[in-house]
Amino acid sequence: MQFIKDFFKNRNQNQEFKKQLNNILGFTPGDVALYKTALSHRSVREGADENNERLEFLGDAVLSSVIAHYLFRKYPYKGEGFLTEMRSKMVNRQMLNDIALKMGLKKITFYNKYDNSLKISQIFGNTLEALIGAVYLDKGYAGTQKWVEKYIIMPHLFTEDLEVIEINIKNRLYGWANKNGKALEFETLEEKFENGRRLFTIGATVDGELIAEAKGYNKKDASQIAAQLAVEKLGL
Amino acid sequence: MQFIKDFFKNRNQNQEFKKQLNNILGFTPGDVALYKTALSHRSVREGADENNERLEFLGDAVLSSVIAHYLFRKYPYKGEGFLTEMRSKMVNRQMLNDIALKMGLKKITFYNKYDNSLKISQIFGNTLEALIGAVYLDKGYAGTQKWVEKYIIMPHLFTEDLEVIEINIKNRLYGWANKNGKALEFETLEEKFENGRRLFTIGATVDGELIAEAKGYNKKDASQIAAQLAVEKLGL
Repeated sequence: MQFIKDFFKNRNQNQEFKKQLNNILGFTPGDVALYKTALSHRSVREGADENNERLEFLGDAVLSSVIAHYLFRKYPYKGEGFLTEMRSKMVNRQMLNDIALKMGLKKITFYNKYDNSLKISQIFGNTLEALIGAVYLDKGYAGTQKWVEKYIIMPHLFTEDLEVIEINIKNRLYGWANKNGKALEFETLEEKFENGRRLFTIGATVDGELIAEAKGYNKKDASQIAAQLAVEKLGL
Repeated sequence: MQFIKDFFKNRNQNQEFKKQLNNILGFTPGDVALYKTALSHRSVREGADENNERLEFLGDAVLSSVIAHYLFRKYPYKGEGFLTEMRSKMVNRQMLNDIALKMGLKKITFYNKYDNSLKISQIFGNTLEALIGAVYLDKGYAGTQKWVEKYIIMPHLFTEDLEVIEINIKNRLYGWANKNGKALEFETLEEKFENGRRLFTIGATVDGELIAEAKGYNKKDASQIAAQLAVEKLGL
């Protein structure tokens, strides 16, 4: 009798899993085993061909390419620096983890919930990348491109908001300086010619002390990165 | 008369360019203007929509994805660490530049030959990435995948040779130590638990002095990276 009970319990769990997977994907997967691998963290499956790390490697690359093409089309007159920066805002660890949680991946990811050493802030973002790898093997590149645009970019990545994030970082820094009576300045530390164009090194100083510096092919880019580094260094 | 001479001169140059492009691509491109953009360095065309930097951004991502899928298929039982390392051996700057030169890209790349600040060791590798971006826009992902495998991976990237590069690096280091009467050792400096698995820090010492250190999820990977860093530090 136990055998029959287990059989129905497993069958029900399996059907529940398939239902949730279908909901998240928006289509019926061709190969459920592939998606189970994509959703299995190494804390429950040790083997390289059993857990999701290989698919994460693949999905990470495919996602990067899909996002690159999306930005290439969306911003036909923007340079490579802007496109690279936008992509890194879209596919960083924290962003992917947040999206994965919003998509409900936590519910269907297999991982060791009792292992305290797991970096819970990364598992689901990595699982999302692995899921993209599985979609790519299942549906091909063009299918993945459509899927990523419909289920990841459109609902979760508002490029117009991301464009202005850099402004907010400088604002945050100036706000902090103002509140604490500090003098914040951005200075050009160096300017040289490299690779056929000018390369600037910009430093962020607080009360005359250099807090962070960054290089860039224009002052705006360099000072934004310096601001970002200063924010991190000051723990703001 | 000059007008007519120029017309024929331009037409001949254009036809020569098309012929060389066809030879390199192995197919007749759909949109020659797109490929001209891919082959134009910013030293001859300033505008972001005129030179090859946007296409380089796109092609870099597409190449990375094609290589990821290639390695994923070729090594079905290897873990993510191995795949990542193999890819970085295949698509690093120097490798891409070498391949670009072998393919004859130098002859058809438009760049300012009189600008001494140009990093000649990077231009053609970057052009190759831009060319891949153009092939992708022209032929789609599947077409690019076939093209990259046929014209880049098969003739230029011998994965069997690349697999053993790491061994040679340690050999080179031991050879140098032996020749110079130095004692080379790899030591485990730290071992801790992170993200559900053990993380090792391995140091390379020469006569007891720490030269380089690296982290990895197994000792072999960590000591290979430490060896690589030691080789760079010692200038071997």
